[in-house]
Amino acid sequence: MSVPQRATVVTLGARSVASLRAFYRKIGWHENDGSDDTYTSFTMGSMRLALYPIGLLRQEAAPEGEAVAPGPWNGVTLGINVATRDEVDDAFAAALAAGATAIQSPGEREWGGYSGYFADPEGHIWEATWAPWFTTFE
Amino acid sequence: MSVPQRATVVTLGARSVASLRAFYRKIGWHENDGSDDTYTSFTMGSMRLALYPIGLLRQEAAPEGEAVAPGPWNGVTLGINVATRDEVDDAFAAALAAGATAIQSPGEREWGGYSGYFADPEGHIWEATWAPWFTTFE
Repeated sequence: MSVPQRATVVTLGARSVASLRAFYRKIGWHENDGSDDTYTSFTMGSMRLALYPIGLLRQEAAPEGEAVAPGPWNGVTLGINVATRDEVDDAFAAALAAGATAIQSPGEREWGGYSGYFADPEGHIWEATWAPWFTTFE
Repeated sequence: MSVPQRATVVTLGARSVASLRAFYRKIGWHENDGSDDTYTSFTMGSMRLALYPIGLLRQEAAPEGEAVAPGPWNGVTLGINVATRDEVDDAFAAALAAGATAIQSPGEREWGGYSGYFADPEGHIWEATWAPWFTTFE
């Protein structure tokens, strides 16, 4: 009996799937077949990022009626590692051009890397990251 | 100029990295080298799950002082797809045996699959999922 060490889907509860998916398309991401304004997903390596209406997600994931997090940050970050510092700058600029909010401009980090933080239109935080020990990806 | 379609790290802001990593070890997951009570990560396919103190993560990811989500659910779910319904039951039972909280027992879902939801000790929601169109994994 075990729990597979696996995370195959990260689902973001969306206030508006339509506007969020428009944002992610605008930064250049390709949706999987069957995507619409009630559910969309994007394949990235072994994982899929999904967008689903937060009220419906709550019915499944927090059925006891717990309030949806009201604050501007949900305590989670999503990282996009890249191979060079320049790619951090590039990804950060591309995200902002697509309507992301700048949280922290790219800069050197104490832990030895270089990264910048941006938020999607609903406040999900992404970190475009260069870490010297993690520069190749599937 | 583009944003790579990639999510290489999902970082959960932890109130206690020590107790959360103990939980994830207890469900059978193996930490990457260099893990300690201030930072740990688990490799799963092309993605890493990381645990980092929420106060420190906030300094980077929400430096304007936004409050950390106070509620019991953060609006995000993490899915573990498996190959059979039995594996959903198995993963759900193993998670509970390790101290997870049952949110929804495994059952048939309207979208055509079978899944159960559980929460880690700090309320992050995981869905053990069987979806007939997604049964092979890296």
